[in-house]
Amino acid sequence: VARTSDHDRPVPAATVSRLPLYLRVLEALADGGSATVSSDLLGELSGTSAAIVRKDLSCLGSLGTRGAGYDIAALHSRLAKILGADRAWPVAIVGMGNLGHALANYPGLRGPTFPLAALFDVDPAKVGRAVAGVAVSHLDELERVASKEKVAVGIVTTPAAAAEEVANRLVAAGIRSILNFAPVRLTPRPGVVVRDVDVGMELFVLSFNETMRGS
Amino acid sequence: VARTSDHDRPVPAATVSRLPLYLRVLEALADGGSATVSSDLLGELSGTSAAIVRKDLSCLGSLGTRGAGYDIAALHSRLAKILGADRAWPVAIVGMGNLGHALANYPGLRGPTFPLAALFDVDPAKVGRAVAGVAVSHLDELERVASKEKVAVGIVTTPAAAAEEVANRLVAAGIRSILNFAPVRLTPRPGVVVRDVDVGMELFVLSFNETMRGS
Repeated sequence: VARTSDHDRPVPAATVSRLPLYLRVLEALADGGSATVSSDLLGELSGTSAAIVRKDLSCLGSLGTRGAGYDIAALHSRLAKILGADRAWPVAIVGMGNLGHALANYPGLRGPTFPLAALFDVDPAKVGRAVAGVAVSHLDELERVASKEKVAVGIVTTPAAAAEEVANRLVAAGIRSILNFAPVRLTPRPGVVVRDVDVGMELFVLSFNETMRGS
Repeated sequence: VARTSDHDRPVPAATVSRLPLYLRVLEALADGGSATVSSDLLGELSGTSAAIVRKDLSCLGSLGTRGAGYDIAALHSRLAKILGADRAWPVAIVGMGNLGHALANYPGLRGPTFPLAALFDVDPAKVGRAVAGVAVSHLDELERVASKEKVAVGIVTTPAAAAEEVANRLVAAGIRSILNFAPVRLTPRPGVVVRDVDVGMELFVLSFNETMRGS
């Protein structure tokens, strides 16, 4: 369980997964000229509830005032610091098939927080070409390029059979954060955080809900 | 909160999101010739813990025997029924850019549970072409094709600006389960379940963890 450095209180995983959403909503509210926000509105705009907002934000220390709500600038600044949104985490994508191409053009990889820094493939027809303004390097160049570009996050978009070996190479290159799109569960590695984006799981959550409502 | 029909006990969302993983692990164990599995092993293979496995499965009724573990065939059958994995949920993808192409070729959309049934786009250069063996239809054909193909799940892979209107059309065509890859939060619609696959959120969970360990 992660703890915020200032308070040493544990932050549950479900809370962590909602914090980026609050950050995004606060950005939209600030852009719209608001200075404060109630837990009711923040809950509604985040697709959750006021009670969950209050519980989530209480993990981060005292940030709201009863009656007055949350100060948007202060809360945004605190969330940005906790989430590392005030820094750059250069991203590398390994596997330049359709999914790799789609992600290279993802708007979230154009901003200052997660800049697209490197692309890799093993196909000679792809190596040397540019996608979204970044040259595709051969996977054999991973250590050199990742070090030069200070890559912090590796995105795996290879076929399932290649994912485990690619994860090994990312970790050997010093990368400790991996977003895995390959339809396979990676072996846990000490000190490495892996997030799986698993379309199959999401489909089953939908079919579960259809089943529950008696489709 | 969803409830299983047999027991009328609530199933927490976090449990629902782990059930497909248990199903997959049980399939692998059955393929390997095992007949029973302990909560320890099921926890380890699912990347969670024995305690969480026991808690999750207790929501589904009494399925394990102390000491003997879980009967793999019985547990698999129960999970498959709850998750709707014993039925077909035809899938349509709207938006045939790189991401739509990548998903059309996703192995999970080739099996009997989530067959790829229809593809849609508005680009005349794409309409009429086949991707992964399925013809791309014009979005104006959505209601007719979705009805003919009995589409149960709509996957949105359009640009953010088009996603809300596409969701409206999916719901108008009778589709109540949506998997949204567009980087935008869709308006909640009564009776419709939307799962957002949000790469930006996943990246922030990784940068949060990096920040917590003092990178």
